Amino acid sequence: MTESFSRGLDRHLGDHRTFLTVGLDPRPGGLPAPLADLPETEGLRSFLRGIVEATREHCVAYKLQFASYLAFGVEGIRILSEVRKEIGKDHLVMLDLKAADIPSTMELYRTGVMDRLGFDAMTVNPFLGWETIETLLKEDGKGFFILLHTSNAGAKDLQEAQLEKGEVLWQSLIPPLRALARTGNVGAVVGATYPAALTEVRAGLGGTVPLLVPGIGKQGGSLEEVLTRAKGEGHGALLINASRSILEASRGPDWKEAAGAEAARLTRAMQGAFR
Amino acid sequence: MTESFSRGLDRHLGDHRTFLTVGLDPRPGGLPAPLADLPETEGLRSFLRGIVEATREHCVAYKLQFASYLAFGVEGIRILSEVRKEIGKDHLVMLDLKAADIPSTMELYRTGVMDRLGFDAMTVNPFLGWETIETLLKEDGKGFFILLHTSNAGAKDLQEAQLEKGEVLWQSLIPPLRALARTGNVGAVVGATYPAALTEVRAGLGGTVPLLVPGIGKQGGSLEEVLTRAKGEGHGALLINASRSILEASRGPDWKEAAGAEAARLTRAMQGAFR
Repeated sequence: MTESFSRGLDRHLGDHRTFLTVGLDPRPGGLPAPLADLPETEGLRSFLRGIVEATREHCVAYKLQFASYLAFGVEGIRILSEVRKEIGKDHLVMLDLKAADIPSTMELYRTGVMDRLGFDAMTVNPFLGWETIETLLKEDGKGFFILLHTSNAGAKDLQEAQLEKGEVLWQSLIPPLRALARTGNVGAVVGATYPAALTEVRAGLGGTVPLLVPGIGKQGGSLEEVLTRAKGEGHGALLINASRSILEASRGPDWKEAAGAEAARLTRAMQGAFR
Repeated sequence: MTESFSRGLDRHLGDHRTFLTVGLDPRPGGLPAPLADLPETEGLRSFLRGIVEATREHCVAYKLQFASYLAFGVEGIRILSEVRKEIGKDHLVMLDLKAADIPSTMELYRTGVMDRLGFDAMTVNPFLGWETIETLLKEDGKGFFILLHTSNAGAKDLQEAQLEKGEVLWQSLIPPLRALARTGNVGAVVGATYPAALTEVRAGLGGTVPLLVPGIGKQGGSLEEVLTRAKGEGHGALLINASRSILEASRGPDWKEAAGAEAARLTRAMQGAFR
């Protein structure tokens, strides 16, 4: 039987002994100075290779923000595919696409992201309902992280809409998500910038459901809070994403070393939680 | 001053005298029999070229479902870009990506979809809040269609969540959307399968806000109902999408003629509404 995503994550966490997920989120015009004069796609390739090399031993997973590659056009998507291959099988590699569509279209997203591009997991926006998530779930160990509470200020507009039955919208999503998570292939995304939500989600989903937490570092979330509130059972069932603090650790000639040093620092800060 | 998206849409509707939007949504393994033995990307290219040629004089816009191209891998995205160019400037061309992310990432989506790939409009999922839509709006005539009520059965799960203040979630989105639509660059997506919602959205947003309506044909929505309930002012401020009924009109050697005939039939059925 194929290993479920949750079990695979636990194994990876045990191997790497860190929750650190490096967000490979480049942006046009945002490459380090020594790469800025190269042809755009060459600069982008060198940058991503350098970041992966420098962070490989300090992280358990990579998360690629889809928009970051689309912003480089068709060649950006080619590079997205190459980077996923170059990372290899020792790390989990996730595509952050926040996909949402009718069921027949979700199947096409799955084909593209998993079969064609070879990702291990992707993010999903639940706005179109549970059938759109159910259609993604197969027994092949691919993982789907459902947005519960995002890290931005505007998350409050819809996600915190006050429902008639006394809870807010995102809270009402916890029971159906817990049911889907019995497959072992469903997790949740909760922003580090909403610490109370972290506690509530971990309590509501139970200790084994994977949580993907963005928003530490430049967005203002606290790593300490995330570890205290979101860590689950086994090796923690937790992935903590850092993007800009690593990718933009330096824009100068030491960009690669600085990225590696920041990833190492974050991982050291997490390792107490493994004892 | 640049023409707003709404005004551009009105001009296009007046020129083409139809609301028909052809959904260019191919799927792997779904090409007509005469193209099935070609190398995959060659078959896909021929299919899309044929559909565009056959439908060009019968529609006002094309909508490309992003997942349909991603399902063909990196080459699918290259073909997406080529198809957009081949359609040219006489039709509106929209990317159905249902994008949703934090504001800085939404800017990257805008760069990719509008500047790099050259689309006129895109669909947006509002789950991350109004700031994520505000960040997209510039005075360059690009349009953003926000999901209000999607066409699938599961739409009810979140979109019809009962709020404390007596309405359901999607209804509560109408006033903020109406405010954003004053820019002339914001429209709404409402599925033809929820006819009561069509009436309510048109009344709530006013007559000039563009509505994009999927779900006629194979999904079961009625064209008649859409015309009666969703048509607005001027030339109607309305786009009605048909995908599978045109693309799969025939899988045999007459696929191209059949697609053109189905598009012509739909447009004839719409033309009464122009009188």
